[in-house]
Amino acid sequence: MTVFTFIEILGTLAFAISGIRLASAKRFDWFGAYVVGFTTAIGGGTLRDLMLSLTPFWMLDATYAVVTAFALGIVIALGRYLIRLNNTFFIFDAIGLGLFTVVGIEKTLAAGFPLWVAVIMGTITGAAGGVLRDILINEEPLIFRKEIYALACVFGGVVFWICEMAGIRGGALQIATAASVIAARIVAVHYRLRLPVLK
Amino acid sequence: MTVFTFIEILGTLAFAISGIRLASAKRFDWFGAYVVGFTTAIGGGTLRDLMLSLTPFWMLDATYAVVTAFALGIVIALGRYLIRLNNTFFIFDAIGLGLFTVVGIEKTLAAGFPLWVAVIMGTITGAAGGVLRDILINEEPLIFRKEIYALACVFGGVVFWICEMAGIRGGALQIATAASVIAARIVAVHYRLRLPVLK
Amino acid sequence: MTVFTFIEILGTLAFAISGIRLASAKRFDWFGAYVVGFTTAIGGGTLRDLMLSLTPFWMLDATYAVVTAFALGIVIALGRYLIRLNNTFFIFDAIGLGLFTVVGIEKTLAAGFPLWVAVIMGTITGAAGGVLRDILINEEPLIFRKEIYALACVFGGVVFWICEMAGIRGGALQIATAASVIAARIVAVHYRLRLPVLK
Repeated sequence: MTVFTFIEILGTLAFAISGIRLASAKRFDWFGAYVVGFTTAIGGGTLRDLMLSLTPFWMLDATYAVVTAFALGIVIALGRYLIRLNNTFFIFDAIGLGLFTVVGIEKTLAAGFPLWVAVIMGTITGAAGGVLRDILINEEPLIFRKEIYALACVFGGVVFWICEMAGIRGGALQIATAASVIAARIVAVHYRLRLPVLK
Repeated sequence: MTVFTFIEILGTLAFAISGIRLASAKRFDWFGAYVVGFTTAIGGGTLRDLMLSLTPFWMLDATYAVVTAFALGIVIALGRYLIRLNNTFFIFDAIGLGLFTVVGIEKTLAAGFPLWVAVIMGTITGAAGGVLRDILINEEPLIFRKEIYALACVFGGVVFWICEMAGIRGGALQIATAASVIAARIVAVHYRLRLPVLK
Repeated sequence: MTVFTFIEILGTLAFAISGIRLASAKRFDWFGAYVVGFTTAIGGGTLRDLMLSLTPFWMLDATYAVVTAFALGIVIALGRYLIRLNNTFFIFDAIGLGLFTVVGIEKTLAAGFPLWVAVIMGTITGAAGGVLRDILINEEPLIFRKEIYALACVFGGVVFWICEMAGIRGGALQIATAASVIAARIVAVHYRLRLPVLK
């Protein structure tokens, strides 16, 4: 297992657990919680793949469905003790967000689209799963009102752009992009940075 | 008209009527009720076809759009007398669920995907239309909280798997799968079987 | 810039502003408002393109993303003064609806589908963005309850059908179709025409 795969599993786990926990707050049953967790984990990438005319990534590799089942088991087994792990999950979630953004950008460029489309697709890959989660549990999307979230993906996209123009390629480019998304999230939550609200 | 087509029309009718009735409880107008009914009937199969990179099935055959118009006419004409037919609609819905699951599994296998993807796609074909219906009428998805519903499709998928390993093919395989979905639904509703709820 | 492009920008602007204003009523932040505005503007056409197995149109031309940013700037700058422009936006919205319907019909016919599919796709192109907007802001879809809206697109589709059978082609066919959608909307709002509600 490569480091990349390990990080992807951590991110999938964090996304799935966030969906399962919110579903449980709505008193969904185990199956409903699994569906919400799975949608949170794979929803953004699925939307991206459909728009790129590709087969959704999770249909080619059972890992994501299995990791979501594992996430359900964790929430069932640990229940309210999970609250103590909130900081851990926040870090996992930020790491997942950074990685998913990089995957989204690179897959879009590989499909032949320009960079501005890739930045949008990176943001969709990272953030749309959470929006679909909130639609399923019938709540207003959280990421449109709380600390900067999807904008961290856009920021990562801009960093990718600058790094690429500066001649940075390969692993260094990936790490710089993901790290800037993760850093943006940590800074945003630490200082409670929010965007202005329209009136 | 084959038996298969007849069953498919019955199932489409039951799904469309369920959508139209819930839309009318929200005081949607006729057009809104038609859209909700149509989405309930074709939403699961459309999601499946998009993920399989196929043209949505209802765009190749006007039957589904016409049956939904017929369903709207029934609800307008019969109104509250429909309540007396609730048991009939429950049976139609269960039959539709069984058939849609079989169609979803077989279409996915025909597209070259492994069986675990086919089981998920069978479940999406059967159950996702009801989730889309509940999103449109702005309610929490009913199937994530009431008696076992989507899990009946998964159960059908497992029966398909076992039957196929046992060498059963063709019509017998289809009937066994659909019958197990229908039986699971009847048993679930009769004994009010629900999955545990997360806390 | 052709007249066609100019009208398309006006329509996109009107759709985006309608999304941004409703998002602001929900106290979404600037990013959330942008996403809701963009989804309102491009959601219908995106759904159509996915079902026609085409690349979503806005991924091939940055105009739509830029116009939405412009719409956000307008709402931020003008704020409550926009209320005075409600009649202007109503006209823009009606023009956009007419144009989007024509684009949807022609793109579907060009993809080789029959006219009844094209009429549905024209309606989806015009009206589905507003439904997706209402799903994102967690409200029941407005167009299923207020004055005739999506039905104006269907009416435009029928006019297209009749005109084509009468041998009308090209620009005259496009103008007749769009004008009939726009006229239907103006008449519907002026006389508060609503469809019956189911009980």
